[in-house]
Amino acid sequence: MLNSNPNKRKIINDPIYGFVTLPDELIFDLINHPFFQRLRRIKQLGMTNLVYPGALHTRFQHTIGAMHLMIEAIKALQSKGIEITAEEAQAANVAILLHDIGHGPFSHALEHTIVHGINHEDISALLMNRLNKEFKGKLDLAIAVFNNRYKKKFLHQLVSSQLDMDRLDYLKRDSFFTGVSEGVVSSDRIIKMLNVVNDQLVIEEKGIYSIEKFIIARRLMYWQVYLHKTVLVAENMLVNVLTRAKELADKKVDLFCSPALHEFLYKRYTKKLFEKEPAVLDLFAQLDDYDIFGAIKVWAKHEDVILSTLCENLIERKLYKIEIQNEAFEKKYIAGIKKIVQQKLGLNEEEIKYFVFDNSVSNEIYNVSKIGINILFRNGKIKDISAASDQLNVEVLNKTVKKYFLCYPKGL
Amino acid sequence: MLNSNPNKRKIINDPIYGFVTLPDELIFDLINHPFFQRLRRIKQLGMTNLVYPGALHTRFQHTIGAMHLMIEAIKALQSKGIEITAEEAQAANVAILLHDIGHGPFSHALEHTIVHGINHEDISALLMNRLNKEFKGKLDLAIAVFNNRYKKKFLHQLVSSQLDMDRLDYLKRDSFFTGVSEGVVSSDRIIKMLNVVNDQLVIEEKGIYSIEKFIIARRLMYWQVYLHKTVLVAENMLVNVLTRAKELADKKVDLFCSPALHEFLYKRYTKKLFEKEPAVLDLFAQLDDYDIFGAIKVWAKHEDVILSTLCENLIERKLYKIEIQNEAFEKKYIAGIKKIVQQKLGLNEEEIKYFVFDNSVSNEIYNVSKIGINILFRNGKIKDISAASDQLNVEVLNKTVKKYFLCYPKGL
Amino acid sequence: MLNSNPNKRKIINDPIYGFVTLPDELIFDLINHPFFQRLRRIKQLGMTNLVYPGALHTRFQHTIGAMHLMIEAIKALQSKGIEITAEEAQAANVAILLHDIGHGPFSHALEHTIVHGINHEDISALLMNRLNKEFKGKLDLAIAVFNNRYKKKFLHQLVSSQLDMDRLDYLKRDSFFTGVSEGVVSSDRIIKMLNVVNDQLVIEEKGIYSIEKFIIARRLMYWQVYLHKTVLVAENMLVNVLTRAKELADKKVDLFCSPALHEFLYKRYTKKLFEKEPAVLDLFAQLDDYDIFGAIKVWAKHEDVILSTLCENLIERKLYKIEIQNEAFEKKYIAGIKKIVQQKLGLNEEEIKYFVFDNSVSNEIYNVSKIGINILFRNGKIKDISAASDQLNVEVLNKTVKKYFLCYPKGL
Amino acid sequence: MLNSNPNKRKIINDPIYGFVTLPDELIFDLINHPFFQRLRRIKQLGMTNLVYPGALHTRFQHTIGAMHLMIEAIKALQSKGIEITAEEAQAANVAILLHDIGHGPFSHALEHTIVHGINHEDISALLMNRLNKEFKGKLDLAIAVFNNRYKKKFLHQLVSSQLDMDRLDYLKRDSFFTGVSEGVVSSDRIIKMLNVVNDQLVIEEKGIYSIEKFIIARRLMYWQVYLHKTVLVAENMLVNVLTRAKELADKKVDLFCSPALHEFLYKRYTKKLFEKEPAVLDLFAQLDDYDIFGAIKVWAKHEDVILSTLCENLIERKLYKIEIQNEAFEKKYIAGIKKIVQQKLGLNEEEIKYFVFDNSVSNEIYNVSKIGINILFRNGKIKDISAASDQLNVEVLNKTVKKYFLCYPKGL
Repeated sequence: MLNSNPNKRKIINDPIYGFVTLPDELIFDLINHPFFQRLRRIKQLGMTNLVYPGALHTRFQHTIGAMHLMIEAIKALQSKGIEITAEEAQAANVAILLHDIGHGPFSHALEHTIVHGINHEDISALLMNRLNKEFKGKLDLAIAVFNNRYKKKFLHQLVSSQLDMDRLDYLKRDSFFTGVSEGVVSSDRIIKMLNVVNDQLVIEEKGIYSIEKFIIARRLMYWQVYLHKTVLVAENMLVNVLTRAKELADKKVDLFCSPALHEFLYKRYTKKLFEKEPAVLDLFAQLDDYDIFGAIKVWAKHEDVILSTLCENLIERKLYKIEIQNEAFEKKYIAGIKKIVQQKLGLNEEEIKYFVFDNSVSNEIYNVSKIGINILFRNGKIKDISAASDQLNVEVLNKTVKKYFLCYPKGL
Repeated sequence: MLNSNPNKRKIINDPIYGFVTLPDELIFDLINHPFFQRLRRIKQLGMTNLVYPGALHTRFQHTIGAMHLMIEAIKALQSKGIEITAEEAQAANVAILLHDIGHGPFSHALEHTIVHGINHEDISALLMNRLNKEFKGKLDLAIAVFNNRYKKKFLHQLVSSQLDMDRLDYLKRDSFFTGVSEGVVSSDRIIKMLNVVNDQLVIEEKGIYSIEKFIIARRLMYWQVYLHKTVLVAENMLVNVLTRAKELADKKVDLFCSPALHEFLYKRYTKKLFEKEPAVLDLFAQLDDYDIFGAIKVWAKHEDVILSTLCENLIERKLYKIEIQNEAFEKKYIAGIKKIVQQKLGLNEEEIKYFVFDNSVSNEIYNVSKIGINILFRNGKIKDISAASDQLNVEVLNKTVKKYFLCYPKGL
Repeated sequence: MLNSNPNKRKIINDPIYGFVTLPDELIFDLINHPFFQRLRRIKQLGMTNLVYPGALHTRFQHTIGAMHLMIEAIKALQSKGIEITAEEAQAANVAILLHDIGHGPFSHALEHTIVHGINHEDISALLMNRLNKEFKGKLDLAIAVFNNRYKKKFLHQLVSSQLDMDRLDYLKRDSFFTGVSEGVVSSDRIIKMLNVVNDQLVIEEKGIYSIEKFIIARRLMYWQVYLHKTVLVAENMLVNVLTRAKELADKKVDLFCSPALHEFLYKRYTKKLFEKEPAVLDLFAQLDDYDIFGAIKVWAKHEDVILSTLCENLIERKLYKIEIQNEAFEKKYIAGIKKIVQQKLGLNEEEIKYFVFDNSVSNEIYNVSKIGINILFRNGKIKDISAASDQLNVEVLNKTVKKYFLCYPKGL
Repeated sequence: MLNSNPNKRKIINDPIYGFVTLPDELIFDLINHPFFQRLRRIKQLGMTNLVYPGALHTRFQHTIGAMHLMIEAIKALQSKGIEITAEEAQAANVAILLHDIGHGPFSHALEHTIVHGINHEDISALLMNRLNKEFKGKLDLAIAVFNNRYKKKFLHQLVSSQLDMDRLDYLKRDSFFTGVSEGVVSSDRIIKMLNVVNDQLVIEEKGIYSIEKFIIARRLMYWQVYLHKTVLVAENMLVNVLTRAKELADKKVDLFCSPALHEFLYKRYTKKLFEKEPAVLDLFAQLDDYDIFGAIKVWAKHEDVILSTLCENLIERKLYKIEIQNEAFEKKYIAGIKKIVQQKLGLNEEEIKYFVFDNSVSNEIYNVSKIGINILFRNGKIKDISAASDQLNVEVLNKTVKKYFLCYPKGL
C-alpha cells in the first residue's frame, strides 16, 4: 500500500485504477490519521455482501478512489485552460477525501437506532474541524470548498453534485465488487468531457449520451444493488437487532459489547454533547464494523429469545421473505400475517414488530430542482441534461419511485 | 482457430468470449464454406476504423459470436423447462450463423451505388437456399426459423427481434473493438433472464433494468459510433467515390478493378438475374473489402480529377468538415457553400455534388409497433418494456430522432 | 447470491465468473450450513489488506469459485470421453467446496499462538465428518476423494495437487482483488487442456506454455503478495499480539474477548479434546475475523503497555520497518538493534522480543517430488512439466528460496 | 479518432488505453502524413487472423500505443528526478512512432520474395530521412535517438532494447486482440519501476517478478501466437504464393496486380535504387495489405494451376497439415511424402516444393549478450535479470529453441 519509504513516492494499489499516486504530504498524513484508517474497517455497502459476496470493499477504498478521480478531473480542466491553483487542487482533493469521514459502521442502521439526534453529515463536519485544528488550519480551504463557501463554485460541484467524483467512483467500484457489470460508468470519458463555464461545471455536448448512460446506470445500481430486495431484508433485520438491543440496554439488561459500543448503547449522546465534548467524538471514532458484528455474533446466544433469534438469523443468513409492491400493503393483510407468525413463534403484541414489518423505499433518478448536470452545446448554450436529452424527459426523471415492502419469516 | 484435427473438438478463439465451441459438424462445415469464409474479409463497421482505429472486426467474428450467445440462450431456456429439441437448437444456431451471409463489403454504400435493385436481405435468402441445396436440405428448419415460418415463434425471436442474439453480440463486440466501454451490455445477465411464455420470448421482471440499460447502450452506440459524425463523413465520401466510379464506368472510362468488381461496375445485374443465374450470385460472393479498397487506392491516381481527389481524400484520411443540426439546412446556406467550393476547386454545376452534399440520418431507439421486448412479471402478467419501465416511456421511445448534416472540404 | 426461491435455480453472483450456478440440492444445503456461512467472515488473505486494500475477499468466495472451476473441469473432461458419473462429479464438487472448511480466522497466526496442537487440516477432517453425519452419509464419496482413497485418483488431483482447482481459483481471485494483474492465470485455457491418462490428470502438449505461465504467476504472487514484506510485518505483528495476549491470559490477566475467543485464550484444547468433545468443535466454528480483530481493537487501550502498543500499531497501521536478505542476520546486528529499541521504549529482556524479531520465509515454486503437473505429448508420452519445459529446469524449480527478515519499530 | 478540430485537443480512441492524447503538433502532423496513414492498412500480425480471428489490428494502432507508453515512461522517469527536456521527450516520442514505418504488408513474406536486397529497417531509415527533409530537420534529434547516436543512451533503450515500449505495447495489444489473455503484461507496473542509473535504463528491485513474468509472457506469445503452427502454415503458404507469382512474372506471364505491386513483381529494385530514386520509395509506400490480398483473391482463378491452387487454399482457409518436432526431418521421410503428393496432384519435381516443404523456426527468449534488462537493487548494485532472477538462469535463457516443421496438403 503506502510505499515503505514515506519520504519518497506514495502509491496505493487499487484493483480499479491500478495505482493511485498520493499527490502530497498533507494527503499522506491525513490518510495515516486514525480517523481515516478507521474507514478501512467500515464496509461501503453494509449488509450487501449477503447478496453479492464480493461487496466487502470499504469506505477507505472508495474515498481514495474518489480522490484519484478528482486529481484526473482537475488535470483535465487545467488542460482546457481553467485556472485551478495548486492550493485549490489540494483543497478539492482533501474535501473529497474527507467527504465520508463521519460515517459510522452500517451507517443508516446505526443512525436510526443507537446513535440518535446526530447524523453522519454533522459528524463529518465535527471531524473535519478537529482535523483542521490538528493540522493547524491547513484544511481551511478544503472545508470552504466542502461547504460551498469558496468563490469557485465548480470545485464544490466536483465534490458534491449530481455528477461528482463521489458518484463516479462509487458506481464504478460497487459495480466492480458486486459483479453487476452493467453499473459500470466510463469515468474516463466523462472526465474528458468536463469543462467550466461561468463557474459552473458542464459536460461538453458530445458527452450527452455518456451522461444518459450514467443516469441509467445509477438507476440500475439502485434497484439491482442498493435497494435489492434481499439487501433490504438484511438491512431491516439489522435495524431490528439494534433496536431490540437498545431496548434491552435501556432496561439495563446486560449485553456483550465493545467498550465504545457500550457507551452508545447504554447512554444517550445528544448532538450538543458531541459538539461540546471532544471525548464523545473520539468514542464515536472507535466504532466500526467489528464492534457491531462482533456483538451480534455473541448476542445470537443471548437469553433474550427475540434478540438471539434475530441475530442468529442474520449470522446464518436465514433471511426473511419479502413482498414488494407499488402500493402500501393493506392493514388487514399485514395483520393476518402478524397473527400467523405470532401464534407460530409465541410472541406478544409488542414483540411481533421484530418479525413482521413493513416499510417503503424510494429512489429519485435525478432531481431537476437540485444543482443539475449541465450540457454545454457547441453554440455555447447550456442546458440541463433533462432538457438536453431527447430520451430522459423531465417528468419521468423527476418522478420519485416508491416501493412498499413487507417482511416476515420464511416457511409460514 | 479451427482445431487442426477436424474430427475432434472445434474451438474458435474469440477475445470477447474466450473460446467458442462449435456444436456440431454441420456448423463446422458451414463455417468452412467459401461463402462464409468470405465474411472474414468484410469489416462489420465499414469505414468506422477511420474514427475508432480498433474497429476492424469482421462479420465473420460477429456471426460466430452471435451463435455462441444463441447456444447459451438455448441452454438457459432448456434449464427452465422450455422444450427445444436438438434439431431446433441446430436450426436456431444455423439461422443466426447465416443471418448476415448476404452482406457485401461496405454494404450500405455498395447497395446504393454499384449493386442495384437487390438488397442484402434478398441476397441472404438466395445464399441460404443455395447452401441448403449443397447441404441436401439440412438447412430447411433453419430457413423456416429465419423466415419466421416455424411454429415455435420464440426461436425466430432469438434470431431477429428487438432483443435478439444479433444485437447482443454486436453491441458487445462493437463496444469492445471501438473502446467505447459504455456500449457494453451484460449478455450473461440478460440471457439468464430469458424465458418463454405462450411461445413468446420474455424477460423476467428482475431483468427490467438490464433491458433499460441495453436500450440506452444501443442508443449511445448509435450516436457515439454508428452515426458518429466523422463516420458519416467517411461513409458518404465512400458513396461519392462509388457513385463517381459508376458514372465513369457507364461512360466506358477505364477503371482499375478486380474482375468481380468489374462485372458489377460495368454491367447492371437485376434482382431477377440474381435469382435466375447462379453465376451472378457466385460473382457477388467474390466481393469483399479488398475489391473495394484495393480499387480506391489505385483510383487515387486516376486521371479523372474528381475520382482521384475523392479517393485520395479517403486514403489519406483528409475528411470533410461536417455540420450537423436538428433541422434541414437552408437551401441558401448550402448554395453559398457550394459556390465557394466550386470556385475554389474549379468545378462545374454537375461536379459540385461530390464535394458539397447534405443528407440526414435518423435513429429509432425502440419501435413499439414491432415485436417488442416483453417483461414477465412475478404475477404472470406480461408487458412491453415501454409500458413496464417507469423510465422509458412510449412517446419518447417511439420518437424517431432525425439529424441533418452538411459536408464540404475543410479549410475553405 | 442465493436465489430467493430456494426451490428453483440457485445462482451466486461472483465478480470474477459472473454467475456461479449451484449444481444440486446437497451443495445448496452445505453452503447454507452455519459451518460454511462462517467462511463469509474469514478473509482469504488475512492482513494483506493493509498493503492491498482490495484484498478483503473471503474463504467463502474462494471455495465457491473453486467449485465453479471444478464443474467446468469435469464438463471439459467428460466432453473428451473421460467417464465421470453424476455421483463422482458431486463428490468432487463437495470435496473442493469443503477443502478449506477447517480454517480459522487469520489461520496461520492463530495456529501458532492460541489454538495449539491441532492444525486446520485436522479440523477440516473433523468438520467434514460431522457434516457427513448430519447429512446421513451423503459425503462419504466426497471424503474419500478428498483423502485420496477413491479409486479414480484424478478426481483427488483436481481437488489437491500442484494444478488443482484450488490454486487456479485463488491465483485468479487474489490477483483480481489485490489488483496485481500479473497474477492472472487463464483458468479457461488450462481447463480446456485437461485430460486424463492412466488415471492421471494431464495437460495436453499445447498447454505447456500456459503451465509455465501459471507457475511463474504463482511465484510472482508469492513474492508480490503472499510474502510481500509489509504483509510479513503485519502478520508477524499479529502473531506477537496473540502471543502476548495468551501470555497475559495464562497469568489470569483480564482481557476483553468474545466468549468463543475467551475459551481458546484461557483454556488449552488438545487435539484429543477436539476429537472427543463435539462442543469444542462447535466453539471453534464460532471463531472468525470479528472475534480476533474485535478484541485487538479493545486491547489497544489495555493497561498492559506491550499489548496495547502492539494492538494500536496494528489498528492504526503503524507497521514496523523490515529488513530482508538472503542470509540469516548476524546475532550481533540484531542485538545492537534490540539494545537501541529496549532503551528507547524502556523494555526488559523478555519484552523486547515483541518489538524486535527476526524470522524467515521460504517458497518452493514447484516441488518435483510431489504429484507433479504432467504434460501429455501428441505422441502419447507423458512428462513432468519440469522435464517437458525447456525454460523451467528441475534444479531451479526445486530450489527452495529462503529469505530472512528482521523487524523493528520505525524511526529509531 | 483525431479530434475534428485540429487546433484543439487531439485524442485517439484505443480499446486498450482508452484515450491516447497526442502531445504536440509535430506528432499530429506526422500521424497525418500519408506514409503513416498507410500503416492503417497493414496488419500487425499478418496471417495470424486465420487462427485468431480478432488479430486484425494494424501497425498504426501499435505505434500509437507504443508512443502512449513512451509518454507515460518519460513522465515516470521525470517524477524520479531524471532530467528529460521537452525536446528529448519529443524526440523519443517521434522515434518510437516511426520505428516500424518501413514495414510493408506481410513484411516477412514480402521481403523474402518480391522486395529483394533491402529490408524494412533500411526502408525505415530512408523514410525517416525523407520525412526529416519534409519537416525541415525537426526529426534530427529523434533520428539520433533512434540510431543510438544521442548522448542519453537510455532514451534509445526506451525505443529499442529487450524492455522497450515497442515490446510492452505489442505483447499487450496482441494479447488483447487474439484473446490469449496470458500474454498480458502489466505495462503500468513495469513503467512505474523504471529508473535510470549511469545513463542505463534499470528496473527497481521490486519489479523483478514483473520482469520474469514479462519474459515468460513473451515466450508464451511466441509459441502460442507468433509461431503458432497454423500461423506458420499460413505464412509459409503465403511465401509460396508470392514466390510462384514472382516466378511467373519473371517469365512475363500476365498477373492481375495493382500498379504498385506490378512494379515490384515485374521489376527488380535494388537497395541502391531505393536510395537513389525517391520515386521507388514512394512506390513502396503505396503497398499495403490490399495490394497483396487483393491480388491473391484474383489469382485464385488464374490459369496457372499451381498459383490458383495455392491462392484458393489461402482464401478459403484450406490450410496444410503441419508436423513439428525438435529435430530436422529425415530426408527419406520428406521424400516419401513428396512422392505421394506428386502423384496425387500430378506435379513435376520442380512444382512439388510449393505443396510439400520443410523449414525451421527458432526463438530466443532473452539474449544475454545484447543490451539486457538491468535490475537495480536497494543497495545500489545493478545486475542483469538473468543474474538477478533465481528462476531464469543464464543457460536456459540463452538457449535458442529451434523447431523444425514439415507441411503438406491435408487428407493424403
